[in-house]
Amino acid sequence: MLMGEGVEWGLHCCMVLAWLDDHAPIATARLAEIFELPPEYLKKRLQPLVREGILDSTPGARGGYRLARTPERITLMDVVAAVEGRTEAFRCTEIRRRGAGASRAGSDFAKPCGIAKAMGRAELAWRRELEAQTVADLLAGTPANASKYTRSFYERVAT
Amino acid sequence: MLMGEGVEWGLHCCMVLAWLDDHAPIATARLAEIFELPPEYLKKRLQPLVREGILDSTPGARGGYRLARTPERITLMDVVAAVEGRTEAFRCTEIRRRGAGASRAGSDFAKPCGIAKAMGRAELAWRRELEAQTVADLLAGTPANASKYTRSFYERVAT
Repeated sequence: MLMGEGVEWGLHCCMVLAWLDDHAPIATARLAEIFELPPEYLKKRLQPLVREGILDSTPGARGGYRLARTPERITLMDVVAAVEGRTEAFRCTEIRRRGAGASRAGSDFAKPCGIAKAMGRAELAWRRELEAQTVADLLAGTPANASKYTRSFYERVAT
Repeated sequence: MLMGEGVEWGLHCCMVLAWLDDHAPIATARLAEIFELPPEYLKKRLQPLVREGILDSTPGARGGYRLARTPERITLMDVVAAVEGRTEAFRCTEIRRRGAGASRAGSDFAKPCGIAKAMGRAELAWRRELEAQTVADLLAGTPANASKYTRSFYERVAT
């Protein structure tokens, strides 16, 4: 059960787009250079973030990305959900109703299966942690010179 | 990011093996009938549980499975870890050190990346929920007649 690299890439790009907001829109090629990532692949990974209203994308030669809302209003869960979808990790296929369960009354299954309930509680605990953290929190926790280095790198490669 | 069906199958099999402990070992074919699952496929899904010391497997024509320890000592996390592995869902590949980060001092990266830390906290919250629930809790939360139906189904198909 693994997250795609799009989550790491997407969150780092959100941080960079916050630092470079006055230069926006930031071209895919520039974002890719900042992290030494393959541009075409990065573009694909950022598409779900555009679709979910986390990034704004401007087409054209002078186009690129900017944050679609403030860093305070983008949670880690928003980015994870955009990239990975909102489907719960555990899928209950109700095997309890089959075979030995097939002859039991439907009312025996009125309560959800304890396994599905426990999995749901665990997933909720996970989501709550990710909902409680925003891109603004990530920015606040980054060494002061990270923003400076990123800006000067960008200004060097973009001109 | 989806869990394999082996988690649902494995946990339901643990419950059934607890109910049928006095009949153990329970053959794969019988377990498969109880849930209308393909026996060969179920066998593969139970192998990691044997490997991780959750189930005991007895080979041979009269062989099968039994719980390797009491239901109180099998957590949901044990079963999820056996089936899915213990790798964290989020993999930090330290892209912050590349490109714009490449010229920064190594000491700038002494603290772990905030993204990885937040993901780790969320995963820990998820694990704690699953570690707090045992197969014994699942059994206690099941309608009283589930065990009875399973036993009478088993006694009918096994003889």
